[in-house]
Amino acid sequence: MKIIRTIEALRTEILAAKGAGKNVSLVPTMGYLHAGHAALITAAASETDFVCVSIFVNRLQFNSAKDFETYPVSESEDIEVCKKAGASLVFMPSHDEMYSLAPALQLSMPSLSANLCGPVRPNHFEGVLLIVARLFNLFQPDVAFFGKKDYQQYRIIERLVRDLNFPVRIVGCETVREPDGLAMSSRNANLRPEHREQAALIYRSFKILEKAVNNGMADPIELTEIAQDVIVSGPDNRIDYVQIVHPETLELLQAIDGPFVVAAAVFCGEVRLIDNMTISPVVHDSF
Amino acid sequence: MKIIRTIEALRTEILAAKGAGKNVSLVPTMGYLHAGHAALITAAASETDFVCVSIFVNRLQFNSAKDFETYPVSESEDIEVCKKAGASLVFMPSHDEMYSLAPALQLSMPSLSANLCGPVRPNHFEGVLLIVARLFNLFQPDVAFFGKKDYQQYRIIERLVRDLNFPVRIVGCETVREPDGLAMSSRNANLRPEHREQAALIYRSFKILEKAVNNGMADPIELTEIAQDVIVSGPDNRIDYVQIVHPETLELLQAIDGPFVVAAAVFCGEVRLIDNMTISPVVHDSF
Repeated sequence: MKIIRTIEALRTEILAAKGAGKNVSLVPTMGYLHAGHAALITAAASETDFVCVSIFVNRLQFNSAKDFETYPVSESEDIEVCKKAGASLVFMPSHDEMYSLAPALQLSMPSLSANLCGPVRPNHFEGVLLIVARLFNLFQPDVAFFGKKDYQQYRIIERLVRDLNFPVRIVGCETVREPDGLAMSSRNANLRPEHREQAALIYRSFKILEKAVNNGMADPIELTEIAQDVIVSGPDNRIDYVQIVHPETLELLQAIDGPFVVAAAVFCGEVRLIDNMTISPVVHDSF
Repeated sequence: MKIIRTIEALRTEILAAKGAGKNVSLVPTMGYLHAGHAALITAAASETDFVCVSIFVNRLQFNSAKDFETYPVSESEDIEVCKKAGASLVFMPSHDEMYSLAPALQLSMPSLSANLCGPVRPNHFEGVLLIVARLFNLFQPDVAFFGKKDYQQYRIIERLVRDLNFPVRIVGCETVREPDGLAMSSRNANLRPEHREQAALIYRSFKILEKAVNNGMADPIELTEIAQDVIVSGPDNRIDYVQIVHPETLELLQAIDGPFVVAAAVFCGEVRLIDNMTISPVVHDSF
């Protein structure tokens, strides 16, 4: 497995791999890799013969300086995770390597950023769009893997690819969870021990909401309140948002009449966690 | 020479050309091809073995509906121009083929759009950025050719490539002119005969401005006024702007102390024409 730190060296490796007729895959990450990332790399290795992982904490997508500064880093452990999961190449550039020139170009997607994390993390998806478009051009992957834990990001990237005709296939992988349901996240490392159990209430709230839907409840406001109540039963949980949206347009739903996504952002103590669940209501016979 | 009208067929052609080890070049145009376009295609043919021309009047980059509707079209003549100049493939998609789904993504470059055509053509460069980024992904060219007549566009595309690491080299080609200096433009076809001579005053104003600079005049305001006076000596000319800017940042210059660009947009009757000239002042010995 090669470890590459410069754009120039990366271009050489990609050209060589493509020249050798290899299928190239990309797993973009911000490091501090966990089982969720490993699952993405494993999925990539099962489909392609040149698996690239990028590890870059992209300052441009952090709306909070504190969040950026406290974002956990674990370079040598990350390299081990990549190796074990079957990566061929890890790209770990410095901030200066990636942003030697501050970008003049701005990318945005107002429609898909209108809800969920969009309003509460100004400039976040703009930063994501820019770095992902750049990574696609640098790696020219045939396929790229994203975790559905970042559901809004996954949908925005899908649309980026469609709107700009990037010759890359996007695969969304299911969220990997701890035994109690907490979604794997690099930020979990920053949770205080006394908040860890309360963090699992996010996923628990989705499961309870799912039951309510299958019992016939169809009002998104009532459903959202149920989830909120479950989450704040953890005294150190503070809700950033809980929203029920259309799985593709990410528009807030006025009524449940098909599959939907419930998504939440919650401060567990100081640590902001996100999670979501796609729910397909059981269709009841109406006679 | 192949004529391609769908994205799917284009992808097949590009894959085949790349698979055969060919160097791919792209000349993006909006059709109604003239000697300036032919020069771009000829330049492409001299450097690469698979020369692609796109002909697409991109509605998204027209801020004026009338300008879009009156934009001249000449499909069969365009095909002849491409053939003669050495094109391998012409891509002529319909609006619906390119925009079957209205794009959710928005691209902009506020810094390089702050002057010249940016303020007077709202959303123009946003439309240009989107279509050019798409064309780059569709053709995956090794090199793309743009005319410097659209100087601001040329610099914006250069920066798009740099900011997103598109693996394409941008070549800017010099403006091709009529014998009296008028820059070749598809819009010249819409000029009324009685305005044609007055249109040549745009370039003439640049040449007079250049002389003034070389005579030691260094105040951009005075220089701009000289050019404006020359242009409006044509009674049917109406100035949209005349500006003196830095050749790379496109910022308005406060003083002339090196190479600069003078650029103008002028309504000759109903037809809006643009032109520009890069001027490197002669350095006078100061002793």
